Amino acid sequence: MFMFEKPLGMRDTLPSLYTFKSSVRNNMINVIEKWGYQMLETPTLEFYETVGVQSAILEQQLFKLLDQQGHTLVLRPDMTAPIARVAASKLFKGNYPLRLAYAANVFRAQQHEGGRPAEFEQVGVELIGDGTTSADAEVIALMVSALKEAGLKEFKISIGHIGFIHALFEEILGNAERADVLRRYLYEKNFVGYREHVKGLSISQIDKDRLLKVLYLRGGIEKCDEAMELVQCKEGKQALVDLQNLWTHLQSYQVEKYVKLELNIVSHMSYYTGILFELYANHVGFPIGNGGRYDQLLANFERPAPATGFGIRLDHLVEALGEIQVTRDLYSVIYSEERRQEAFQEASKLREEGKHVVLQNISGIQDVDSFAKQFTDVFYFLGKPGKERER
Amino acid sequence: MFMFEKPLGMRDTLPSLYTFKSSVRNNMINVIEKWGYQMLETPTLEFYETVGVQSAILEQQLFKLLDQQGHTLVLRPDMTAPIARVAASKLFKGNYPLRLAYAANVFRAQQHEGGRPAEFEQVGVELIGDGTTSADAEVIALMVSALKEAGLKEFKISIGHIGFIHALFEEILGNAERADVLRRYLYEKNFVGYREHVKGLSISQIDKDRLLKVLYLRGGIEKCDEAMELVQCKEGKQALVDLQNLWTHLQSYQVEKYVKLELNIVSHMSYYTGILFELYANHVGFPIGNGGRYDQLLANFERPAPATGFGIRLDHLVEALGEIQVTRDLYSVIYSEERRQEAFQEASKLREEGKHVVLQNISGIQDVDSFAKQFTDVFYFLGKPGKERER
Repeated sequence: MFMFEKPLGMRDTLPSLYTFKSSVRNNMINVIEKWGYQMLETPTLEFYETVGVQSAILEQQLFKLLDQQGHTLVLRPDMTAPIARVAASKLFKGNYPLRLAYAANVFRAQQHEGGRPAEFEQVGVELIGDGTTSADAEVIALMVSALKEAGLKEFKISIGHIGFIHALFEEILGNAERADVLRRYLYEKNFVGYREHVKGLSISQIDKDRLLKVLYLRGGIEKCDEAMELVQCKEGKQALVDLQNLWTHLQSYQVEKYVKLELNIVSHMSYYTGILFELYANHVGFPIGNGGRYDQLLANFERPAPATGFGIRLDHLVEALGEIQVTRDLYSVIYSEERRQEAFQEASKLREEGKHVVLQNISGIQDVDSFAKQFTDVFYFLGKPGKERER
Repeated sequence: MFMFEKPLGMRDTLPSLYTFKSSVRNNMINVIEKWGYQMLETPTLEFYETVGVQSAILEQQLFKLLDQQGHTLVLRPDMTAPIARVAASKLFKGNYPLRLAYAANVFRAQQHEGGRPAEFEQVGVELIGDGTTSADAEVIALMVSALKEAGLKEFKISIGHIGFIHALFEEILGNAERADVLRRYLYEKNFVGYREHVKGLSISQIDKDRLLKVLYLRGGIEKCDEAMELVQCKEGKQALVDLQNLWTHLQSYQVEKYVKLELNIVSHMSYYTGILFELYANHVGFPIGNGGRYDQLLANFERPAPATGFGIRLDHLVEALGEIQVTRDLYSVIYSEERRQEAFQEASKLREEGKHVVLQNISGIQDVDSFAKQFTDVFYFLGKPGKERER
């Protein structure tokens, strides 16, 4: 093994990307805090049996280890379950809704080296204890606001409702297993497979057409009217009313141009319980972020409460923002011993002006020319004191 | 197992501490960047055989796991070895010195629940490729500057030189094993044990006195003169000349009042190779930070180079700064559907003024009084539009 290798999916963030990521993160946090969300941090390691099991991530993607007491630990695969743990324990004071936020690395083991990172940063929020559609609208509007502040110009949030899908599939297919098969096609966005599978079902042509129409329910809020024709049951119609209500709120937030309906979204096999959404931008081929309502999770932490939230993947967002080169001016004061005092004063002065200044004893440099090349400007203090500053 | 439990030594950072930690971290990073250091991030997981083995941390403190390819991974126990890896590979362009910095969590398994965190954040720098005493002085002066910017008023940096200890012990004891036993007493700061052990050695009384005097070499730079009497060999005397030279630099940086000599410091059993130091403050009983010269590490990553740096433990620093309550004003706009538009505008306006504002639909609150109590001020938009704003 070479000394320079890193484990599968592990990345270094070198200085120029680091600076860019920091500024993107800080801009988003700034907005998130203005909306009254409180930032917190949870540990990297959690018990598998609590947070690990409750997380939305597949078993085989968990990094597991044993602690010295013999418990199985996981590197947190997402932040929603840890935040639910904190919201249900230390932060629980009965005054829900609670607005929490985070910027944290999460871990998902990868099977193959293929460009997918196994550790990446998410910036997100959780709004806990508010079951109204206003809460769903708030997290979507906040996501838009944060993305704009991060500098993202063109993006689209696709919004669906898992309650609509559940209701429609139940009405037509009757049993959960058959519904699960179809849901998985949508979850995998395998629309060809979905279509083929529907064609092969032993149901009426009318029902087949209802199921196929789901693939076309993408567009503006008017798609809700079309969808209303497809479902009969109360739950299905209520899901669509939720979406119409959400739309009105999003209009009040003036973010309609960033959203579209996509009623075939199934972001996760079991996690979400209501409105859910995915964020896409420009040329990036996978969701940059996602979110939605998860009204069951808190009950698993012994404090039942409705909840909704979003998470943005900072690495994908940075990719969507493009190769923005952060060039920060860096100066150097290079000195020899005789003029140390002068050089120190000069460096102090420049730093007080806000400049970034490397103060360097010339005897510590091997190749002055090569060293000096990296700076916007170099101030030399060499030789006898009092000599003019050289360049 | 209760759902709320966390693994041994794992902590949550709740919002008020989070805010305080962030501001302390950011103030330090601000100074570190002004001194021309470049921030970077490395992965949480590294190979045990490379970075794990090269880290300065004891084997039993490592969190280990197996990846799906059967390699042993570690959660990084410090940042110096990962940064050495990056400096020796991706960042290596031949234009040393290189100034790198980080703010990152590191992991050290704890045996017992006793208040010691197993995950904590370090803020630190590494100055790679400069073997001069100016480089040692720079990292100490930068540490002082960063701490002052973080708001720490009273602190002391104890400075020693492992070369002096090595030379003295070698002169008197002749073999490495005997020297190791004594060094361990100093490393553990077990001065009683050191004294007893020295008394029991079969060496002359003069040599015993020389070894005992090491315990009293604490104070100003004049202690170097006393120490000069104790060693005869070139290496030992050179170490003391290094320290005198360092002192001159620290005077130029005007940081003498924050430093003292402590020639019996042995911060680590094998890691450091020259000047080394420990940071203490107020009532905090353990070092808040430490650092020193490690001229051998880079050679293990196939690019031999001298190096020096420091790391500050953010949790200990926050403790030293005391219970500073960050109270940020938080406002709320509570509305009912009829006046949503008005409420949204009010929230936007307040946020544009820089305020932190929770916008809340009243139908999403269970107990309005209890909810409202947490805010500096609440603006109500309830009932028929056009009504006066209520309080």
